[in-house]
Amino acid sequence: MSILMDAYGNLLTDKQKNIMDLYYNCDLSLGEIAEHTDTTRQAVYDIIRRCHKILFQYEEKLSLAKQKMKLEEVKKNILRDLDLLENSSNEELVNNMKRYIVDNI
Amino acid sequence: MSILMDAYGNLLTDKQKNIMDLYYNCDLSLGEIAEHTDTTRQAVYDIIRRCHKILFQYEEKLSLAKQKMKLEEVKKNILRDLDLLENSSNEELVNNMKRYIVDNI
Repeated sequence: MSILMDAYGNLLTDKQKNIMDLYYNCDLSLGEIAEHTDTTRQAVYDIIRRCHKILFQYEEKLSLAKQKMKLEEVKKNILRDLDLLENSSNEELVNNMKRYIVDNI
Repeated sequence: MSILMDAYGNLLTDKQKNIMDLYYNCDLSLGEIAEHTDTTRQAVYDIIRRCHKILFQYEEKLSLAKQKMKLEEVKKNILRDLDLLENSSNEELVNNMKRYIVDNI
């Protein structure tokens, strides 16, 4: 949910973003958020459920979270290869890295 | 427009996508598209204008096109450094690459 919020949070309204932030980042309960935002527990619950739906719909169409996780893996792998390269440079490894970058980034 | 369509095309309706594709990729005129899709030239014009607005609004909020262009540059720079590395491996270059990757991907 945190990755989805990073990717699509800007597409939510300020109110939706605020409630999702209080729930997922500040770890408040539905009741505490209701009190904090001057609304009902049920309304907070409905907003969170609606946000889930919105975020998953965007992910289904744009796959940003999936791409982000893939890029993180690419980054990790490049850095790992560069660590190897630092100690024993060789042509094969460099060529593998190149292919990997071309195929993945 | 092509980068924006790549990034956010899936958020348009099939009809919108089709018209944008005919206009930008198949290079048809408004009149030709109107004939092809059994509608009026004005309707085609309005749809294209509306799509522009939608695509730019998404870009304003998600910056996918901007990120994509940045990643292309990162990729180009990594590949250029690897070319150098292939001929004369040295520690400084490898460390520069690492910093570059960590800061940019």
